[in-house]
Amino acid sequence: MADQLQPVQVEDGEFKGWFLSPFHDDYVNLIGPFYYLPDVDGKMQVALKVEQRHLNGGGIMHGGCLLSLADTALYVFAVETFKTSGGVTMQLDAHFLSPGNLGDVVIATGEITRAGQSTIFGRGQIKVGDRMVMTFSGVIKRASKSGA
Amino acid sequence: MADQLQPVQVEDGEFKGWFLSPFHDDYVNLIGPFYYLPDVDGKMQVALKVEQRHLNGGGIMHGGCLLSLADTALYVFAVETFKTSGGVTMQLDAHFLSPGNLGDVVIATGEITRAGQSTIFGRGQIKVGDRMVMTFSGVIKRASKSGA
Amino acid sequence: MADQLQPVQVEDGEFKGWFLSPFHDDYVNLIGPFYYLPDVDGKMQVALKVEQRHLNGGGIMHGGCLLSLADTALYVFAVETFKTSGGVTMQLDAHFLSPGNLGDVVIATGEITRAGQSTIFGRGQIKVGDRMVMTFSGVIKRASKSGA
Amino acid sequence: MADQLQPVQVEDGEFKGWFLSPFHDDYVNLIGPFYYLPDVDGKMQVALKVEQRHLNGGGIMHGGCLLSLADTALYVFAVETFKTSGGVTMQLDAHFLSPGNLGDVVIATGEITRAGQSTIFGRGQIKVGDRMVMTFSGVIKRASKSGA
Repeated sequence: MADQLQPVQVEDGEFKGWFLSPFHDDYVNLIGPFYYLPDVDGKMQVALKVEQRHLNGGGIMHGGCLLSLADTALYVFAVETFKTSGGVTMQLDAHFLSPGNLGDVVIATGEITRAGQSTIFGRGQIKVGDRMVMTFSGVIKRASKSGA
Repeated sequence: MADQLQPVQVEDGEFKGWFLSPFHDDYVNLIGPFYYLPDVDGKMQVALKVEQRHLNGGGIMHGGCLLSLADTALYVFAVETFKTSGGVTMQLDAHFLSPGNLGDVVIATGEITRAGQSTIFGRGQIKVGDRMVMTFSGVIKRASKSGA
Repeated sequence: MADQLQPVQVEDGEFKGWFLSPFHDDYVNLIGPFYYLPDVDGKMQVALKVEQRHLNGGGIMHGGCLLSLADTALYVFAVETFKTSGGVTMQLDAHFLSPGNLGDVVIATGEITRAGQSTIFGRGQIKVGDRMVMTFSGVIKRASKSGA
Repeated sequence: MADQLQPVQVEDGEFKGWFLSPFHDDYVNLIGPFYYLPDVDGKMQVALKVEQRHLNGGGIMHGGCLLSLADTALYVFAVETFKTSGGVTMQLDAHFLSPGNLGDVVIATGEITRAGQSTIFGRGQIKVGDRMVMTFSGVIKRASKSGA
């Protein structure tokens, strides 16, 4: 059944041509939507438009919101190494290089550095255009049921 | 003016006696509220009740939500080392030890391990009762203006 | 056979009463010796005396030497959760809080935060007396053969 | 005076054409030598040949030795952003992806992701040929005097 789910393509607006995930995730619904698009090399990009509700008391994107994007993106990078199983994050680290500002489109990209029997290692970066906002790396543990 | 802001104490319900932050934070409003209470040693606890909206597609608390709590808690631990200035997270790492489940009250506690001239180091844990959910550590960079 | 190996107790000098590992490790021989002693709560301490050969070009203990102590200590904390198998480090992170200086005795202590089926999580700190030098955390992957 | 120091080029053997650092570092002398060579893009490579003395009790390269190479390499990547000042590591994290084996030449490469006023962020990887052995990232704090 799951493989009958199709990503929905956005038909207009700033994210025209990007995709929405067909999988239900309450937390991503709360802080998202996140938008997905493979780049020219086939590597997945995960994007979020920074709105007022994503800002902290200092007027910049809350660190937890950036970390939420990083964590979700790490999982997305790992998905193609899944077979019937899913996975859960077991470790994540991040460096905050510059702020996400209101109106920015922050885009996470990355790579899987090792896909082992029980664990998947990855790393990536979040950028606004060419500006580095965050680098991150982490480990996903394979699970028998889907989860993130 | 800032020192006239007073935390608001919760008067009934599960968090009776805990405090709400007097500082406005749109992102914390979105995923929270977070509740605050010093423990018997005076160390601050930061709590969140896990609701349906905090869950991922696998039915457990989204990793990004736990990371958001960790990031916010690290800042809270650092606040007492602030003088006129605030700070921003520059690095955070976390280990995911067990899931946060629907209905759990997850509580972050921790300590500042070094408060230097320009950077503040801390670490902590998120628990449900005695069960470890996450450990984390990070670095806050002091800033001339408040931010997180 | 392995359980017939006994740690050797130091009979005099600064580390009198501490133990040397009975297990052969070329790298620890190169940069060590490391000394071992359970504290009053039964938690293992791992110590190194900082000599000239441990210093970097700036005249303080090289970061790699501190990381080597942290990595070894994490493994030592995990050992008691091993049964017939050993383990290898899969992830480690560290914060450098203050320098290790020539003549210092740096001591690593810590705890296992989760001992799962396939992975063991831990964290700790390296101190000189009461002064914090490093905090660290990491993950050990259980292996079918001993290794570090 | 410092700029009169010249790296020494290796004249024969496996590392012919690579350079040795002109800066004295007791710890690197103990576990090294490390060899340096800019790649075709001008990015510095830092290499170590794995010898018996680098192995742990399990017969593979000790994690601390890999971390020592990572820490040193991070500093080397940062050096070109230094002016009159040096720096010290304030944070480092690493993922262990595959073992370093006896006889391997492990090579660290990487990049600076942000060079700020007081801190420098970087990340990199250690490989044997095309095989990933470690990924790492970290933060260097600028100092008024040279140190690592």
